[in-house]
Amino acid sequence: MQYTNAIPEKKPHILVCNDDGIDAEGLHVLAASMKKIGTVTVVAPSEPRSGMGHALTLGVPLRVKEYARNNRFFGYTVSGTPVDCIKVALSHILTEPPDILVSGINYGSNTATNTLYSGTIGAALEGGIQHLPAIAFSLTTYENADFTYAGKFARKLVRKVLREGLPSDTILSVNIPNIPESDIRGVAVTSQGKSRWAENTIERDDMYGNPYYWLSGKLELLDNEMLYDEYAIRQNYIAVTPVSIDMTNHDALNNIRQWKLKR
Amino acid sequence: MQYTNAIPEKKPHILVCNDDGIDAEGLHVLAASMKKIGTVTVVAPSEPRSGMGHALTLGVPLRVKEYARNNRFFGYTVSGTPVDCIKVALSHILTEPPDILVSGINYGSNTATNTLYSGTIGAALEGGIQHLPAIAFSLTTYENADFTYAGKFARKLVRKVLREGLPSDTILSVNIPNIPESDIRGVAVTSQGKSRWAENTIERDDMYGNPYYWLSGKLELLDNEMLYDEYAIRQNYIAVTPVSIDMTNHDALNNIRQWKLKR
Repeated sequence: MQYTNAIPEKKPHILVCNDDGIDAEGLHVLAASMKKIGTVTVVAPSEPRSGMGHALTLGVPLRVKEYARNNRFFGYTVSGTPVDCIKVALSHILTEPPDILVSGINYGSNTATNTLYSGTIGAALEGGIQHLPAIAFSLTTYENADFTYAGKFARKLVRKVLREGLPSDTILSVNIPNIPESDIRGVAVTSQGKSRWAENTIERDDMYGNPYYWLSGKLELLDNEMLYDEYAIRQNYIAVTPVSIDMTNHDALNNIRQWKLKR
Repeated sequence: MQYTNAIPEKKPHILVCNDDGIDAEGLHVLAASMKKIGTVTVVAPSEPRSGMGHALTLGVPLRVKEYARNNRFFGYTVSGTPVDCIKVALSHILTEPPDILVSGINYGSNTATNTLYSGTIGAALEGGIQHLPAIAFSLTTYENADFTYAGKFARKLVRKVLREGLPSDTILSVNIPNIPESDIRGVAVTSQGKSRWAENTIERDDMYGNPYYWLSGKLELLDNEMLYDEYAIRQNYIAVTPVSIDMTNHDALNNIRQWKLKR
């Protein structure tokens, strides 16, 4: 198995991004946690950009701004998607590649098919494409979020990844239950679950009587063993899923070759 | 191997989408080609939405409009991403699921890591998530595009997929060289290539002297065998890649389990 990174001898340089935007609490907790072990650069969307997946911005110029918090420089905003943030950070903001990229901590779990929709994971995958070890962190709640333990676990896992490296073309997606540390039962290394959104797109009429639609739905649980991320988090485990940049279904190649397709 | 669809006895109902928007020639060629073998519903973005990957629209209402072409009803536009189109089509426009989803024909190849960025593939993957057989078609050029043969091959492949089915949780991404039919050397069943964009983000100053950035770059060829989509198309083969909804790197699971992570 190949590895993407060497163990840095020096204090690591850690690039921090997210998809909830520069103001999100999860980003601040993650940045603060990373500052305890390395030099941190924050580059995050200027606005919340959830559900952006691996989207990038084409045909629209991007703006980069310095962002202060409590009158102190905190990081940079990019007027685009999480993937845009990584592209601009690596090409224009940083003078050399960071040792590792961390993304999050996201409000809400990124398990199962959310792996495809998630901008938090999108940012990490873009890091992977650009040969960085990268980890996406998500807290499994939208409400009453307490990022304290998630920030602590993130630091522990970053240290581990800096030591061990990651398989090439692979990032980690980490989902952390929003429960007290003492209630967490352990860490499960999982696959992307089979659970899907049961669509429930809402139709309403505007002031002119014309309909509009809101995407909505509910995650339908289709996972019933610890192999899967969505099941593991519901059992109060942290779920660590290795996510590949290569989306090929390799098992299907021979099957489709037997079709003997001709031009 | 499991299959996602049964062979329809009746004339198939084919949902057609793209990411270049309702006005794109590749969409019209694909729809016209599909009309020769089935009943067609077109649902496409109202504007070009390239590079949107698997992005969906959250927190902004979506509008659906009927769209006429040459004074005849042609299809529906959705004011969102390709994934939004599929979600709205399946939840509100269609009364029952189609037999198959086709997306494209995209201007420009969707090989290698473009698999993650592509809205054309994003739409097809959303079909796969929703248990439809789905195929994304791309023509390997941005200029002097001639979609004629691509439309013909699309029809042939749709017929094949309706007969054979697809492995579960898997869609096909098809890249067709923009050359005369007689010059196409055959059909290769390929993996997502290793080629990547060499970033070349452009920095310019606006009228106030403030910088802005355009994402740009060049695909750096890292594939040198017929196993890979980007190499195959450069050898004048059609490349057919089975793309999985499951992004897990299954080979990495045991490796990371050996880290014995604790909470």
